[in-house]
Amino acid sequence: MKLPQFEDIVNAHERIKGYVHHTPVFTSSAINRLLGSELFFKCENFQKTGAFKFRGACNAVFSLTDEQAIHGVGTHSSGNHAAALAHAASIRGIESQIVMPSNSPEIKKKAVASYGGIITFCEPTLEARELTLQRIALQTGVEIIHPYNNFNVIAGQGSAAKELLEAFPDLELVLCPVGGGGLLSGTALSVKSLSAKCRVIAGEPSGADDAMRSFKAGYIIPSVHPKTIADGLLTSLGELNYAIICRHVDNIITVSEESIIEAMRMIWERMKIIIEPSAAVPVAVLLENKELFQNLRIGIILSGGNLDLKNLPF
Amino acid sequence: MKLPQFEDIVNAHERIKGYVHHTPVFTSSAINRLLGSELFFKCENFQKTGAFKFRGACNAVFSLTDEQAIHGVGTHSSGNHAAALAHAASIRGIESQIVMPSNSPEIKKKAVASYGGIITFCEPTLEARELTLQRIALQTGVEIIHPYNNFNVIAGQGSAAKELLEAFPDLELVLCPVGGGGLLSGTALSVKSLSAKCRVIAGEPSGADDAMRSFKAGYIIPSVHPKTIADGLLTSLGELNYAIICRHVDNIITVSEESIIEAMRMIWERMKIIIEPSAAVPVAVLLENKELFQNLRIGIILSGGNLDLKNLPF
Repeated sequence: MKLPQFEDIVNAHERIKGYVHHTPVFTSSAINRLLGSELFFKCENFQKTGAFKFRGACNAVFSLTDEQAIHGVGTHSSGNHAAALAHAASIRGIESQIVMPSNSPEIKKKAVASYGGIITFCEPTLEARELTLQRIALQTGVEIIHPYNNFNVIAGQGSAAKELLEAFPDLELVLCPVGGGGLLSGTALSVKSLSAKCRVIAGEPSGADDAMRSFKAGYIIPSVHPKTIADGLLTSLGELNYAIICRHVDNIITVSEESIIEAMRMIWERMKIIIEPSAAVPVAVLLENKELFQNLRIGIILSGGNLDLKNLPF
Repeated sequence: MKLPQFEDIVNAHERIKGYVHHTPVFTSSAINRLLGSELFFKCENFQKTGAFKFRGACNAVFSLTDEQAIHGVGTHSSGNHAAALAHAASIRGIESQIVMPSNSPEIKKKAVASYGGIITFCEPTLEARELTLQRIALQTGVEIIHPYNNFNVIAGQGSAAKELLEAFPDLELVLCPVGGGGLLSGTALSVKSLSAKCRVIAGEPSGADDAMRSFKAGYIIPSVHPKTIADGLLTSLGELNYAIICRHVDNIITVSEESIIEAMRMIWERMKIIIEPSAAVPVAVLLENKELFQNLRIGIILSGGNLDLKNLPF
């Protein structure tokens, strides 16, 4: 199992930088006052396709040789990876085959279609998703790009934290959410390579706490019947991701649904930016543990801003 | 009646620039494609207190002599000017007396209180608001700062368009909303002084179309029973504002409530930023008149981002 190194993130960043946004870092004096620390928000909600996922998808697509790319790429996803992969493929001028569960939100289906993804619907089970994708891959010869358990995807995701640390080298802590571990593993690789003293902590919904339990147990515990509003964080950790997380992450802290919603509302109201529930999870870590994080310079990766405006939790 | 000139905007900008945010200009390739023009959004929703109003309030407060300022400032407002004035006063270290109608939204009352404004509630009529403020002014000696019909407020508001034109000197059109005319008059002064060829057009809700009718009639027609979701645009034009608007504005175009909501949703969904309905009005002008605005470089002032998340129109 070959793990990506920081050098791979540097190469990924070079490869994708003409395609991705170098997203801005926002600050809020009001939130700093409320939480007692100095916060630097890396706004991946402003990334193309509305989430950091575009970095990894882009790196995976543009890492393919022409021969590998000729039949296009494919994945199964109900979320941000699907739109990101479809968009990256369209930029390279290749096809993307996206398997989506039939109960995916309309807004996600529309997004994938608008980027030119070829959608195949299936039953909303992991088994049906994987079988459908395998069948399509056999028929079409697409390269399958896993949403997080993929060397090039991890290297691409790490470019967000790289930009953040390059702009603010004296951060003492970087927080991000953890679902499958793509963002967290890339972030940890970047942070630990660019700063000797900066800690990396992930936030996870307590209703989907498999990453925290895996981190403590020493082996991957699959996510079973997770339940959380943070719909980007329902998946189990990948093996590549887990290996990097064990090596480089300082802690994983779980938070309640109430705190996630409160954190999300705080960001919307105070910063006037739209983040999805998953992106609010690391902010919820600060809300629930104010005393642990006083007077620190903290970077937070706001992972995305895609959600259904008709179905808000406030 | 002494009207502000561009020189006054230059002086205002110098005076307030240590206190206000130099707000960013956002672009969206998706919205450009949808509307067929190249748009540059001046994000005053990210301004302190969540709206451009802080520029004018700040300039008015810091233009006072120490003698004038000693008893504080006062205004009546149910909206963004109240919070802006309270915050500007607190920065200068003087009191602010804010008269608010008793039916003001909780969120606005809280905002004013959080900035240290001293609130007096009154019946929700213009008469009660003016009488209450006059009584307080007699008792306390506060300087009354009108939300828009005020020389220094207009000069402050003009600094937003000044920043926009300085960053993008080749804009062909600048759009902003019109309510009392503070933003529009300041914007028109800046634009027409900085660019010979750039037009200025205002958007106005058709349910509150007094500015458009005044513009066409040649005299101020008061706003009577206006009805629109754009709650920042309910007021009648001020005399100073009207004189400048007649001289420098190219057109005022009205839009439907449906278009305002559609424009607001488009900005939220595509740009992941929160704007209030009033800020969506100039975008609605483009939605309703696509054929008039093709292939232009257009600046849009997104005036604010304050609204009740519990009461959204989608």
